[in-house]
Amino acid sequence: MSHYPLSIMNLVKNISRLPGIGEKTAERLTMHIIRSPLKEVEQLSLSILETRKKIRSCSICFGLSDSDICNICSDRTRNSSLLCVVEQPADMVAIEKSGAFKGIYHILHGAMSPMDGIGPDDIRLKELLSRIKDNNVKEVVLATSTTVEGEATALYISQRLENYPVKATRIASGIPIGGDLKYIDQVTIKRAMETRHAI
Amino acid sequence: MSHYPLSIMNLVKNISRLPGIGEKTAERLTMHIIRSPLKEVEQLSLSILETRKKIRSCSICFGLSDSDICNICSDRTRNSSLLCVVEQPADMVAIEKSGAFKGIYHILHGAMSPMDGIGPDDIRLKELLSRIKDNNVKEVVLATSTTVEGEATALYISQRLENYPVKATRIASGIPIGGDLKYIDQVTIKRAMETRHAI
Repeated sequence: MSHYPLSIMNLVKNISRLPGIGEKTAERLTMHIIRSPLKEVEQLSLSILETRKKIRSCSICFGLSDSDICNICSDRTRNSSLLCVVEQPADMVAIEKSGAFKGIYHILHGAMSPMDGIGPDDIRLKELLSRIKDNNVKEVVLATSTTVEGEATALYISQRLENYPVKATRIASGIPIGGDLKYIDQVTIKRAMETRHAI
Repeated sequence: MSHYPLSIMNLVKNISRLPGIGEKTAERLTMHIIRSPLKEVEQLSLSILETRKKIRSCSICFGLSDSDICNICSDRTRNSSLLCVVEQPADMVAIEKSGAFKGIYHILHGAMSPMDGIGPDDIRLKELLSRIKDNNVKEVVLATSTTVEGEATALYISQRLENYPVKATRIASGIPIGGDLKYIDQVTIKRAMETRHAI
C-alpha cells in the first residue's frame, strides 16, 4: 500500500471502511475512480454527501425520507387503517417491491434483544402505540423478521396491543415460493406445517 | 428501487456504476452511508473527488503520482540503469510490494493488441525508447503480463531494443511458489520446463 501516492492510499483506506469491501476491492475501485471522467466522479462524490445530508427520518413512520413526511405517509390513496410494522427501512422497501401491501408503515429501527440490552424503549414502540391510539388503525401487521429477536418483538407488540381496539396479525412464515422441500430447514417446515390452512 | 426517496435512488445508481458492484451491494452501501457519522461521509466524498483531481501521470515513467514527478523517479537512491517495463500502475505497485526490485519503472498503459486495434503507437513505447536513448539504462526488464498481448508486447519491445546498447530481459514465468503441480495449467508447466535452470 505504501507504494501508492498519499491521496490514493487515503482513498483506498476510506473505501475499505465500507462494509463488505476489502483492501483489494477498494484498490480496484480507486483505480477505476482515477480513470473515470471527472464529471462522473463529481457526481458520485456529491451524491454521497448530499444523500447523507438530505435523508432524514419521516416524522410519522420513521422511514427514510428527503422531506419531513415521506411519500407513503403523505399519500392519501393508501389505506391508513392498515399498518405494517417492520424493523428496518429496507424491509419496508422489500414489501413495497412486492406490491402486496397498500397500507401504511411503521419502522421500529431495530428489534428487541435482551442479550444486547435492547429493550422496548430502544425501538420506536412508544411512537407506534401512540400512532395506533390517535389514528383510526384497524389492523397491525407485524412484519418483523423471523429471527429470534424479530419473533420476540412481534410477540411482545401483539401482547401490548391487546388493550387496543386493533387486530394484530403476523406475516406468514413457510416454504418460500419455488423452494424445494428437501433443502428447507426443519424449523421452517415445522412452522409451515403448524400454520397450514384450508385451500 | 422506486420505493426509496429520489436522492437514495440516485446514490444507488451512482454506486452501482462502479465495476463489480451490483444493485444489491449498492443498496447495502447506500444504507451504510446514510447511517454513518457525517464526518466519515464527508471524508469519503472529499477523498474521492480530491484523489481524482490530484492524481496525474508522472511525466517520466507515466506511473500514478500526485506531483509532476513520482516518488520513485525522484528517488536518487534507486538504480536508474535498471528499468522495468509494466503495463499498468497496479503492476508496478505489485512489484514494489515484493521488494525485489530497486530500479526504476516505465508504465506502458496498455499492451499491444492488433485484434483491438492497439498498436505500438497507442502505448507509451516511443517515450520508453527515448528514455533509454537519453539515459544511462543498461538493462530493460520486460514485466508485461503473461497474456497473449503482454507476451507479444514484450517480444516486440525486445526486437526494437536490439539497436540499443541495452540488455533486454523478461520476468520469469513458471510454477507459482506454493503452487501444486497437479493444479497448474499445461501451458505454464510447459513454459517452466522450457526455461528450467541449473540449481
